[in-house]
Amino acid sequence: MCRWLAYSGSPLFLEDLLYKPEHSLIDQSLHARLGVETTNGDGFGVAWYAEEPFPAVYKGVDPAWNDRNLRELSRHIRSPLIFAHIRASTGTPVQQSNCHPFRHGRWLWMHNGQIARFHDLKRELSLAIHPSLYADIEGSTDTEVFFFLALTFGLEDDPPAAVERAVGFIESVARANRVEEPVRMSVALSNGDAIWAFRYSTVGEPPSLYFSTKVETLRQTYPDVEVFKTLAAESRLVVSEPLGSRKGAWNEMPRSHYGVIQPGQDALRPFIPRE
Amino acid sequence: MCRWLAYSGSPLFLEDLLYKPEHSLIDQSLHARLGVETTNGDGFGVAWYAEEPFPAVYKGVDPAWNDRNLRELSRHIRSPLIFAHIRASTGTPVQQSNCHPFRHGRWLWMHNGQIARFHDLKRELSLAIHPSLYADIEGSTDTEVFFFLALTFGLEDDPPAAVERAVGFIESVARANRVEEPVRMSVALSNGDAIWAFRYSTVGEPPSLYFSTKVETLRQTYPDVEVFKTLAAESRLVVSEPLGSRKGAWNEMPRSHYGVIQPGQDALRPFIPRE
Amino acid sequence: MCRWLAYSGSPLFLEDLLYKPEHSLIDQSLHARLGVETTNGDGFGVAWYAEEPFPAVYKGVDPAWNDRNLRELSRHIRSPLIFAHIRASTGTPVQQSNCHPFRHGRWLWMHNGQIARFHDLKRELSLAIHPSLYADIEGSTDTEVFFFLALTFGLEDDPPAAVERAVGFIESVARANRVEEPVRMSVALSNGDAIWAFRYSTVGEPPSLYFSTKVETLRQTYPDVEVFKTLAAESRLVVSEPLGSRKGAWNEMPRSHYGVIQPGQDALRPFIPRE
Amino acid sequence: MCRWLAYSGSPLFLEDLLYKPEHSLIDQSLHARLGVETTNGDGFGVAWYAEEPFPAVYKGVDPAWNDRNLRELSRHIRSPLIFAHIRASTGTPVQQSNCHPFRHGRWLWMHNGQIARFHDLKRELSLAIHPSLYADIEGSTDTEVFFFLALTFGLEDDPPAAVERAVGFIESVARANRVEEPVRMSVALSNGDAIWAFRYSTVGEPPSLYFSTKVETLRQTYPDVEVFKTLAAESRLVVSEPLGSRKGAWNEMPRSHYGVIQPGQDALRPFIPRE
Repeated sequence: MCRWLAYSGSPLFLEDLLYKPEHSLIDQSLHARLGVETTNGDGFGVAWYAEEPFPAVYKGVDPAWNDRNLRELSRHIRSPLIFAHIRASTGTPVQQSNCHPFRHGRWLWMHNGQIARFHDLKRELSLAIHPSLYADIEGSTDTEVFFFLALTFGLEDDPPAAVERAVGFIESVARANRVEEPVRMSVALSNGDAIWAFRYSTVGEPPSLYFSTKVETLRQTYPDVEVFKTLAAESRLVVSEPLGSRKGAWNEMPRSHYGVIQPGQDALRPFIPRE
Repeated sequence: MCRWLAYSGSPLFLEDLLYKPEHSLIDQSLHARLGVETTNGDGFGVAWYAEEPFPAVYKGVDPAWNDRNLRELSRHIRSPLIFAHIRASTGTPVQQSNCHPFRHGRWLWMHNGQIARFHDLKRELSLAIHPSLYADIEGSTDTEVFFFLALTFGLEDDPPAAVERAVGFIESVARANRVEEPVRMSVALSNGDAIWAFRYSTVGEPPSLYFSTKVETLRQTYPDVEVFKTLAAESRLVVSEPLGSRKGAWNEMPRSHYGVIQPGQDALRPFIPRE
Repeated sequence: MCRWLAYSGSPLFLEDLLYKPEHSLIDQSLHARLGVETTNGDGFGVAWYAEEPFPAVYKGVDPAWNDRNLRELSRHIRSPLIFAHIRASTGTPVQQSNCHPFRHGRWLWMHNGQIARFHDLKRELSLAIHPSLYADIEGSTDTEVFFFLALTFGLEDDPPAAVERAVGFIESVARANRVEEPVRMSVALSNGDAIWAFRYSTVGEPPSLYFSTKVETLRQTYPDVEVFKTLAAESRLVVSEPLGSRKGAWNEMPRSHYGVIQPGQDALRPFIPRE
Repeated sequence: MCRWLAYSGSPLFLEDLLYKPEHSLIDQSLHARLGVETTNGDGFGVAWYAEEPFPAVYKGVDPAWNDRNLRELSRHIRSPLIFAHIRASTGTPVQQSNCHPFRHGRWLWMHNGQIARFHDLKRELSLAIHPSLYADIEGSTDTEVFFFLALTFGLEDDPPAAVERAVGFIESVARANRVEEPVRMSVALSNGDAIWAFRYSTVGEPPSLYFSTKVETLRQTYPDVEVFKTLAAESRLVVSEPLGSRKGAWNEMPRSHYGVIQPGQDALRPFIPRE
C-alpha cells in the first residue's frame, strides 16, 4: 500500500508539495492515515517535466523521510507537472528498478494497490507484453508489468482505453487462474501535457484517491499555506491521501472512474475494463 | 528513540531473537509500542561474540525490516552474546558510523535516549575525550561521544563507575550551559563476558527497559516459542520493549539502576552519577 | 567482465581468501590484471555452506573494497565451501538482485562472461524457463536467466549435462537470431558437496580460469602464506585470475572443459554443448 | 587522490561537463590518468548555483559511474556555476557526510590532496575551529576540518587570506608534531559569484590542476564538442585533470598559486601560507 501525488498547474518547487503541507507526502511516508500500511519506507521516486519533452526521474531506496538529496533537490527544482511516490513493498525487493514512477519515453506511470497473487500470474501476464518491450523490464513488480501491458495495449494512443484493456486482460487471466479480486488500483499516468488518474477495484473498495477542489477553495481552506496564494486557477492535485485534514479542500474520486487533468476543461469519466 | 536488545546465554541464532518472537525487534522497527517514535527505520546494527575475543559488528543504513542480508545472516550466525539495535535518528545523518552498537576493542556500547541540546554541548563534551581516543570518533552522534567519555573515565576497568562519571560529567557541563534534563538513557555495554544495562534519567521517567524473568518462567509463559525450550537456565534478555505481550515474562528495570548479567549470580544495583 | 573464486577444503575464514592473498579478490576489485575491465566495482556477493544444507549469501551494491561489513564478516565466518564474486556490470542495474552468486535451494551459481546481445534474446530465453521457476526471477541479468535455464534442463540431477543443454539452447536461439559468438563463460556451481567449474566460449578464447595445484605445491610456492600451512591435502581453489604471481601454483583450465572438485578424486572433463 | 572540476560561464547542463567530454569526470572515476589512484569510486558530489543564493548539493556513496540519478539529473539541471567531485578515500568511511563539495551558507569547498598524518593532528586542528562552527562538523575527513579552519580564519570576508592562514596554521601544528610534508592540495571554493582555485604543497609537487584557455581556443581545439560553440567568451573550467588530450586547450596552474575566476578580469596570484 503505497502513497502518491500528482500535480499540474503553476510551476512549483517540489518542496512545496513534498515537505510543506501539514500532512505532506514525506509525513505520510512515516505516518500514513489511510490504507493498510502506516509506514511507506521501502523506497520512493519523484518525476517532473521541465524544458524537455522527457521527464526527469529521481529514485531512492532509502525511506523518503531520510533522503537528504531529495530534500535538497526539492528546494531547487520547479516544475508545472510533478509525480511523487512513496513505496510500501508487498514483497518484491527494495531496489531503484522497483520504485515508481516508471517511465517509457515521455510517459510516466505510478500505482497504489496490487495485482493479487501476482507471483502466480506473472509469467502469463509478462508473455502478453509486446516482444519489443519485454526486454526493457528492469524490475520485478506487478506495477511495471501492468505498465508494460498498458503500453502494449496502446497507452501512447489512447491512455484510458489502453488501461481499460490492460485491466480487462489481467482480470481474464486471473479468472482463468481462479484468482479472485485480482485488481485494486489507483493509477496516475502522464505524457507531460495531461494527467490521467484512475480508481478501480474488481471487487470491493479501491484504494483511496482524492483530487483538489478549485484553487479558490484551497486558498480559503488553507489561508496559511503560502504557495496556494500564487497558483493559477487551473492548478490541480491528485493524491492517495489528503495533504491536510480540513474539509472542503478535497473531493474523493468515485470508484470505477478516472479523471483527466488537462489544459482547458478537466473531465471525470467512468472506467470500464474491456476484454 | 531507538530500540535495542541484549542477550546472554545458550548460543542462539540471531534469527531466534530478531525475527521469531511475537513482537520481535524487526517488528518493532516498523511498529514500536512504547516510546515517542513508532518507526525505527534509520539504520540498525547487530553485534555478537564468537570464537574471538573481539565481537563482530554488522550495520546497515536501510530499515532493518528491509535488509535481506540481515535476514540471511540471522539464519546462519549463532552466538552466546548478542547485541541488536534499531535506530530512530534524532537528526544526525543515517550513516553506518552513526549506527549502534559502537565498538572499541572488545567493548560494545548501545543506547536509547539522548543528551538534550547535544549540538550546544558537543564541543565541550568532545574536548573532554582522552586525546588518544579523540581521532577515532567516526560519526556525529551523542551516543558515540557518550561512549568515548565513558572510555575516558575508565570503562575498561570499572564499567559502572565509568558510566556514572560520564553521566556526572555530562550533567555538570549541561548545568553550566543551562541545559535542563540533559540525560535520558538506557544503555547496554559488554566485554564479551558480562552485560551491563543502565536505566537513568536526570529528571522524569527514563526510556523503558525490561529484563527477562527466569528461563523456567519464559518457557511457561511462551510454551509455543521453540527456542526457549533449549535455553540454559541462566540465559537472559534485556530489551527496550518486551518481545511479546504476555505478563510474567518481563520485569521492568527500576529507574536509576543498572543490572549485571554474568556467569554466576546476576546483580541489580543503584546508578548514581558522580562528578 | 567479473571476477570470482570458489574454494573447497579445510574450513577457512573468508578473510583468508578475500583479503590476505597478494593479489586477492578484493585487490582485483580495484585492479584486475586479466580481462577487459580493470575495475570490478559494481557490487559483489559471497556465499558459504555452514551447518545447514542451504548456503548463506551476503551481497552488496557498493564496491567490495569499500564494504566494511564484508571485511568484518570475513574475519568471523569460516566455511569449508566458499563462493565469492565481484561484478563489472555490462549495463544492467547495480542492485542486489543482479549480484552473484545466485541461489536456488541448495544450489549456488556464479558467472563471468556474457550472453552476447542478451537484450535481443532475453524474451525467447526467458520463455524457455520452466513455468514453475519463471516468477522467481528477481533481477535482470543474463546470468540469472542462464542459471534458470540450467535448472530447467535438470541442473539438480545432472549438473554438467544441464549446463551443456542450457548452452546448446542459448546457442541455437542465438543462431536463429543471427547473433554470433553468443556465449563466453566461466561458471561455478555447487550443491554444498561438490563444485563444478566450466570454461567455454562458442568462438575464440573463453574468460580466464585457473585452479590451484596440489596443496603441497601451494605451500612450497607461497611459504609466507600462513593459511596454506594448515590446509588439508585435498583443498582446492578455482579462480578467474590467480591470487598471486608465482609460477607453479596455478593451472589454467583448458577451454571447453569443466572440472569437478569433490571428496575423493577430482575430475577434468570435456564440455560439449548439446541441443 | 580525488578528481574535481569547477565551471563558471554560460549556463550548461551538468551532462555537458560530466559525461560528454572525451575524458570526462565520469570517465576519470573509472580511469584517471594522473595521480596515484586510478579509480575514484568512493562516492561523489555535485553542486550548482541556480536562482537562489544558496547552492544545491547532490551527493552519492556509490561510484559516480554507476549513479543513475546523477546521469538523470545531469540531463535536466543547468547552471552557470558548477562544482563536481569524485572521491578516492584515504581511509575515512564512504558516507555522504564525507563527500565533497562541502557547503556552509553560500559557500562551497572541495579538495584533492591530503593533510599528512591527519589522524595524529585531528584533535589539535579541530580545537582551533571556532566554537560556533565546531558542532556543525558532520563527517570525519581532513577536508571538512580544513574548510572549517578556513571559515574560522575569515573565509567569508577574504577567501585567499583565510586559506593562507588555514594552511599556515596546519603547517605550524604539523611542525610541532614533527609531521613532515603536511599539506598537498588543490582546492576550489566559491560563493556563487567567483571561483577561487588553489594549488599548493608544503614540499614537492602539488596535485595536478589545470584551467581552460580562452573559449575561442577551446572551440578551435575541440571543433567536435557541440557545447563549446555556444559558450560566452568568459566561460572557464578548472580541473584536476584535462577533460581531453589535445594540446593548447589547458594551462597548468603554477604551484603555490591561486586563480580567481570572476566577472570581468580573471586573476592569477601567488599563494603564501601565513602564520
